[in-house]
Amino acid sequence: MRVLVVNPNTTASMTEKIAVSARSVAAPGTMIEAMTSAMGPESIEGYYDEAFAVPGLIQALTAGGDFDGAVVACFDDTGLDAARSAVAFPVIGICQAAIHVAALLAHRFTIVTTLSRSIPPLEGLTRRYGVADRCRVRAAEIPVLALDNGDPEADAKIESEIALALKEDRAEAIILGCAGMTDLTISLSRKFGVPVIDGVTAAVKLVESVVGLGLHTSKIGGYAPPLPKSYRGLLSPFAPRDH
Amino acid sequence: MRVLVVNPNTTASMTEKIAVSARSVAAPGTMIEAMTSAMGPESIEGYYDEAFAVPGLIQALTAGGDFDGAVVACFDDTGLDAARSAVAFPVIGICQAAIHVAALLAHRFTIVTTLSRSIPPLEGLTRRYGVADRCRVRAAEIPVLALDNGDPEADAKIESEIALALKEDRAEAIILGCAGMTDLTISLSRKFGVPVIDGVTAAVKLVESVVGLGLHTSKIGGYAPPLPKSYRGLLSPFAPRDH
Amino acid sequence: MRVLVVNPNTTASMTEKIAVSARSVAAPGTMIEAMTSAMGPESIEGYYDEAFAVPGLIQALTAGGDFDGAVVACFDDTGLDAARSAVAFPVIGICQAAIHVAALLAHRFTIVTTLSRSIPPLEGLTRRYGVADRCRVRAAEIPVLALDNGDPEADAKIESEIALALKEDRAEAIILGCAGMTDLTISLSRKFGVPVIDGVTAAVKLVESVVGLGLHTSKIGGYAPPLPKSYRGLLSPFAPRDH
Amino acid sequence: MRVLVVNPNTTASMTEKIAVSARSVAAPGTMIEAMTSAMGPESIEGYYDEAFAVPGLIQALTAGGDFDGAVVACFDDTGLDAARSAVAFPVIGICQAAIHVAALLAHRFTIVTTLSRSIPPLEGLTRRYGVADRCRVRAAEIPVLALDNGDPEADAKIESEIALALKEDRAEAIILGCAGMTDLTISLSRKFGVPVIDGVTAAVKLVESVVGLGLHTSKIGGYAPPLPKSYRGLLSPFAPRDH
Amino acid sequence: MRVLVVNPNTTASMTEKIAVSARSVAAPGTMIEAMTSAMGPESIEGYYDEAFAVPGLIQALTAGGDFDGAVVACFDDTGLDAARSAVAFPVIGICQAAIHVAALLAHRFTIVTTLSRSIPPLEGLTRRYGVADRCRVRAAEIPVLALDNGDPEADAKIESEIALALKEDRAEAIILGCAGMTDLTISLSRKFGVPVIDGVTAAVKLVESVVGLGLHTSKIGGYAPPLPKSYRGLLSPFAPRDH
Amino acid sequence: MRVLVVNPNTTASMTEKIAVSARSVAAPGTMIEAMTSAMGPESIEGYYDEAFAVPGLIQALTAGGDFDGAVVACFDDTGLDAARSAVAFPVIGICQAAIHVAALLAHRFTIVTTLSRSIPPLEGLTRRYGVADRCRVRAAEIPVLALDNGDPEADAKIESEIALALKEDRAEAIILGCAGMTDLTISLSRKFGVPVIDGVTAAVKLVESVVGLGLHTSKIGGYAPPLPKSYRGLLSPFAPRDH
Repeated sequence: MRVLVVNPNTTASMTEKIAVSARSVAAPGTMIEAMTSAMGPESIEGYYDEAFAVPGLIQALTAGGDFDGAVVACFDDTGLDAARSAVAFPVIGICQAAIHVAALLAHRFTIVTTLSRSIPPLEGLTRRYGVADRCRVRAAEIPVLALDNGDPEADAKIESEIALALKEDRAEAIILGCAGMTDLTISLSRKFGVPVIDGVTAAVKLVESVVGLGLHTSKIGGYAPPLPKSYRGLLSPFAPRDH
Repeated sequence: MRVLVVNPNTTASMTEKIAVSARSVAAPGTMIEAMTSAMGPESIEGYYDEAFAVPGLIQALTAGGDFDGAVVACFDDTGLDAARSAVAFPVIGICQAAIHVAALLAHRFTIVTTLSRSIPPLEGLTRRYGVADRCRVRAAEIPVLALDNGDPEADAKIESEIALALKEDRAEAIILGCAGMTDLTISLSRKFGVPVIDGVTAAVKLVESVVGLGLHTSKIGGYAPPLPKSYRGLLSPFAPRDH
Repeated sequence: MRVLVVNPNTTASMTEKIAVSARSVAAPGTMIEAMTSAMGPESIEGYYDEAFAVPGLIQALTAGGDFDGAVVACFDDTGLDAARSAVAFPVIGICQAAIHVAALLAHRFTIVTTLSRSIPPLEGLTRRYGVADRCRVRAAEIPVLALDNGDPEADAKIESEIALALKEDRAEAIILGCAGMTDLTISLSRKFGVPVIDGVTAAVKLVESVVGLGLHTSKIGGYAPPLPKSYRGLLSPFAPRDH
Repeated sequence: MRVLVVNPNTTASMTEKIAVSARSVAAPGTMIEAMTSAMGPESIEGYYDEAFAVPGLIQALTAGGDFDGAVVACFDDTGLDAARSAVAFPVIGICQAAIHVAALLAHRFTIVTTLSRSIPPLEGLTRRYGVADRCRVRAAEIPVLALDNGDPEADAKIESEIALALKEDRAEAIILGCAGMTDLTISLSRKFGVPVIDGVTAAVKLVESVVGLGLHTSKIGGYAPPLPKSYRGLLSPFAPRDH
Repeated sequence: MRVLVVNPNTTASMTEKIAVSARSVAAPGTMIEAMTSAMGPESIEGYYDEAFAVPGLIQALTAGGDFDGAVVACFDDTGLDAARSAVAFPVIGICQAAIHVAALLAHRFTIVTTLSRSIPPLEGLTRRYGVADRCRVRAAEIPVLALDNGDPEADAKIESEIALALKEDRAEAIILGCAGMTDLTISLSRKFGVPVIDGVTAAVKLVESVVGLGLHTSKIGGYAPPLPKSYRGLLSPFAPRDH
Repeated sequence: MRVLVVNPNTTASMTEKIAVSARSVAAPGTMIEAMTSAMGPESIEGYYDEAFAVPGLIQALTAGGDFDGAVVACFDDTGLDAARSAVAFPVIGICQAAIHVAALLAHRFTIVTTLSRSIPPLEGLTRRYGVADRCRVRAAEIPVLALDNGDPEADAKIESEIALALKEDRAEAIILGCAGMTDLTISLSRKFGVPVIDGVTAAVKLVESVVGLGLHTSKIGGYAPPLPKSYRGLLSPFAPRDH
C-alpha cells in the first residue's frame, strides 16, 4: 500500500519529522511517501495561512503519484474537503484522525495546540466532528516553527497545558494539536500516564484501515469529482483538467 | 461609505448581475465597487472550486483599495475566515448574511441552492451559524453558469423547490442559495407571498450596518492579522507582506 | 423610513437615553420615534417584569403610527414574538440584534448584563438564537435604574466583568446586555480594543437593513396575524380589533 | 394539599372541562381549585394571545389563595417563568408536564396540537425542555374553541394526525397539545394502543409529586421574587406590592 | 398501588435506607416493597459494576410480584432500558426522576455523586435526558459503601461540593447522585436554602404519577417485550420464558 | 498482534461468519481469535437481550487470553463501556467502528439494521458518537437469526432500505447494522456504488490501528479498573478478583 503524506506547509524539515513519525507506525506493507507542498506559507497558523496552503496541497495530491490513500499533515485539516473531492483514494486529516482515535479510548480529551489564534478553527473542527461537548482546545503559545527549531521552552509549555487539561478539563487523553509535535508523543504519554495521541501517526493507521477495508471516499454527494470548468490566472495550471 | 463586493469566481458577467443587485439596495451614501476575482474557477460548485477561489478573493480584498467593508459574493462563504483575518474592515459572506436576515423574520426557512453537491457544504454552514435545526437546504439542480446564461428551465426548477419547502419543510421564508439568483428575489417574493432573501443584498445592508455602528472584525482571536512568514512558489506574490 | 423604538419599561428618562443612541447611528433618511410604554413596570429585571411589560409594548406598537419597522428596546427581547405577530412591519429585539452583529465579527463573545437574575432568561435567548456554545452571559450586579441614575460604581463593575470575559471566556467581542448601557459603547470599545456591541444601535441598523431590503416578518407561520377573538377585563381595550 | 389549576384563557366552560380532568386523577388528599383568568383572550392560539393572557394568570396565582402548588393549564406554558417568579409554591405547565411524563415511557413521541400557528412556539418548548430530537409537533388544524364547542370533525382530525405520527415519526407515545383535548385521553389511548398523555392530568400529578417531596421552586436564580418597583397604567393593580 | 423498589446492588442495609426514604414520601394508598438484588456486586461504582448488576435487577423485577410500577434505585439508572422491556408496568430510574424534578424547579442544577469514575456515565445520562447544557456532575470522592457505613467525613465532602456548585456552576438546585445519600436530603436542603433532590423519593412520586395517570411504558418501539429465544449457560434461568 | 473478536450472543455459526470476515481484512501479523459467549441469549435484539449478553462478554474478555485488543461483535455495542473497564487492552465496538469509518468517507450515512426495535438503541449510539445529525437508522425488519439461516428475502429487504437511504436520507454511505450482515458488504458496495461499511471488519482495522499506535484505553476516568468488591449469587464467579 502506498500512502502519500502531504505536509501542506513549505518547510521541508518539518516534512522530515512527519515522515519519520509516519514510518514509525506504518505496517510492513505500507510505503510512506512524504511530500512538501511546493507553494504557500512556511507554516500554517490560522485561517489566512490555511487558505494559501490549499492549492499546493491539491497540487501535491493530484501530481500523478499512484497512491492508495493520503494524509493531510496539518492539524487544521487544511483543505481536507477539497482534497477528498480531488482524488479517488481516501484522504484523512490529522485532526479528524486524532479525534476519532481519542474517542475510542476516553470520554473527555483535550487538544493542546500551538498558538491561541488556532483555537477558534480547531473548536470549529471539534463541532464538525461531533465531539465539542467532550473535547477542549488549549494553546501552549508556541509558534509552529519554534517546534521545528527546538525551542527549549516548548516542552515545558506543552507539559504545563497537559497538566491543566488533566486537572481542569477532566481530560482522560491528550491530543497533540500540531504536526510539529509528532515526535513528543511517546515521551509525553509515559510522563503523564494517559494516552497521548498524535494526528500524523493516527492518520497513517486510519488510511491503512480504510484502504485495508477496500473503501474509498463516497463520490455521490459533497465529494463528487470537480466539474470541468475554465480557470483564469496563476492558478490555472492546477485546474482539474483530466481527472 | 465604500463597500467592496468581490465575486470570487472569474465570470465577469455574473459580477455585473451581482453589482446591479448590490447597488439596488445600497443606501444613498454607499458606493459599491464590484470586483471579479483575477484568478481561479469560472464558477464555484463544491469544495474543490472553493479552495481555488480563495487566493484570488484575498488578492482582491488586499489589492489596496480604500474600503470600509466588503462582501464575499459566493453563497458557500468561500474563504470568509481568511478574508476576515486579511483585512481590517468588516467582511460579510452572503450565506451568513441571508441566514441572519431570515432569522429575524421567520422560524423555519429553506435555502434553495444550485446543485446537490453544494448541499453538504451549505449544511455545514447552517450548523456553524446555529440554525441547523430550523434551516433545510434543497438543490434545484441547476449549474451556476446556467443561471447566468438564462437557462429557460431554471425558474421552474427553483419555483418547484420553493413550493416543496413551504409544504414539506414548513418554511416561513426562502433563501436563494447562489449569488447568480440575486435577480429573482423580488418576483419570487411576490409569487409566493413569503420573504425571499438574497444573500448579496442582505450582505450589503449588513456591511452598512456594521460600518454604521463603527464596528470592525475583532482582531484578538481567530481573526488576528496573519503572522509575517516566507512563501514559496506561485502564490508568494500574495503573501502578507505589508499589511 | 420611520422607525419606532419602544422602551417597554415606563421610565421616560431611559427612553431619552435610548433615543439619543438610536439617532446617533440612524441613516440620513431614517426618522427615529422613541416611545415609552404607557403601562407596566419602571424597569425590567427578570421574567415577572417582562410579563407585565408586554401589553404596554403591544399597545405602543399598534397605536396606529405609520412605521416601517420597530425596535423593542429591552435586552430580554420582551414580547418580541407577540410584537411580530401584532404588526405587519418588521420588529427587532435588541438582544437578537446584538447577537447577530457579534456573530459577524467574532467567534466567542460575552454578554455583560445587569443583575444575575437576568442570566437565565438571557441564556435562554442565546440558545434560541443558536449561539449558546460561543456566548457566555455575565452579570455586573447593577440594577437597571442605577444605570439611569448614574451609579458611580456602575462603570467599574461593568469594566471588571469585561476584563474577566476577555480572559476567562476567550471573548473576542462584548455585548452590553441592557438598553441602559447604550451610552457606554464607544468608551468601552476604545478602552478594551475589542468590538463592544450595544443592542439599541445594532437593532436600528438591522431594522434599516430589513426595511431597505423590502422584507417583512413572514406571516404564514408562527407570526400569522392574531385571530379575532373576544377579550375580558382590563386588557380588553388592547384586544386585536381592527388590524 | 390544595392545588390551583388556572385556565389562562377566559372561557369558563373550558375551565370546567379542565377541572373535571384534573379531579379525575387527583389523589384522595388533593383539593383541586380551578380558576378562570379574569382578563385576557377567550382562547390562546399563538404568541399574541399568550402575551395578553399572562397578567390575568399572574393575578389568579397571586390573588391570595392558600395553595401548595399550581398548574398553568395552557399548552404553550404561557407565562410559566413569570408564574414561578411570582409565587413561592411550585408551578407546573401542562406542556412541560406532558413532555416529562412522555420521556419516562417512550423514546420518540409526538405532540398533536390545534392550529399550525402553534407549532413554532411548541417547537420552541421542545428545544427548551431538551427533547427536540425526539419530539415532533403536528397540528390537527382545529381552533381551540371548536374543541370546546364539540366540532364533529375534531376527533377525526386528531386521530388522523395520531395515525401519521405513529407511522411517519415512529412515535411511541402521543401528547395531546391543548388543554381542550383533555377529555379525549382515555379513548384515544385505547384506540391506538400507545400511551396518550394529557398535560392537565400530568401536571396535577407532578404538582402532587413536587409538593409531596417537600420541594419548591428555587428562589436563588432566575425565579427570585420580583424586585419591588413602581408600576404605571392599567396594570398597576397587579404590581407586586406585598409579596 | 404496589410499587417495587429494587436496589440493584446486593447490600441489604442500603436497601433498608432506601426503603425508609421511599416510604417517607409514598402516598397513603401506596405500598412500597423494597427488594435487594439476589446476585451481583455489593455496590455499583462505574460501568463494570453496572453490567453485573443488571441480571439480578431483571430477576427481581420479573420474579412474579404483582406490582403497578417499579423504581430502579441506583443513580446510574442501571439496566433501566432492559427493565422497561422486561415488564409491563412502568419503571423509573432514580437519576432520570431526579433530573425531571429538578427541571421543574430550577434552570441550572448540579449532581453531586460519589466517586469521580461515575462522572462519565452520569454525564452520559445528562445528555440522554436532554439537560447536559444545564446540569453539571461533581464527585465528592466517597465510596458508595462509606455512605452506608457512616464515614464521618462524608457529610463535609458532600457539603463542600454543594457549596462549589452554588458558586461556580450557578446551580439553583442540587441533586444527590447516589441512592445511599437519600437520608441527607432534608438536612442539606435546610442548610443550603435550595431544593435538594433525592432520586429515590423523586422516583417513587413519579411512579405514583404515571400509575395514577393510568399510563404504562410504550410497547411498540424500543421497549417492546423481549422476543422468545434460547439461552445458554448460567443466565438461562432468567431467560424470558413466559412473559 | 492477537485480536480477540467476541460474539456476545451464543450462536456459534454466527461467530464463524464473523471470524471469516474479521480474518479477511486482518493484516498479515494479526491473529484473530473468535470466541462465542458462553452464556446468554442466542441473538441480541433490543435492550433486554443486551443486558443478558454482557456478563458472558466480560467473561470471554477476562478469561485470561493474552490479547492486544478486542472487538465486541454486536452492533448495539453491547457492554462496551464495561468491557473497556474490565481489561487493559483496547476494546472496540462494531457500531462505533463503523460510524468512525463512515465519518471519514461521507457526510451523511445511514445504518440499515435488522428489526425496528433496535432503532432506539442505535439512535442512542448515533447521539453518543456525535453523528446524530448526519446518520439515520433504518430497519429491514429481518430477525438476526434469519440472516444466519439464509432467509431468501433478507437480501431484497436490505437492498430496498439501502435504495431508500440513498434517495430519502441523501446518504453517501451505508452502514450494515448487524454483525450477521458482514458477508454482504462487498456485493452491496458493488451494487450501489457507494461505500458499504461493515462494523466487524471496521473494528478489526481500528483495533489494529490503536494497537499499532501503542495506545490503550485511558484508565484515569470512567474506564478505571473495577474496584475490588464482594459478589453474591450466580454471577460471583465473574467478579473482578485479580485484575
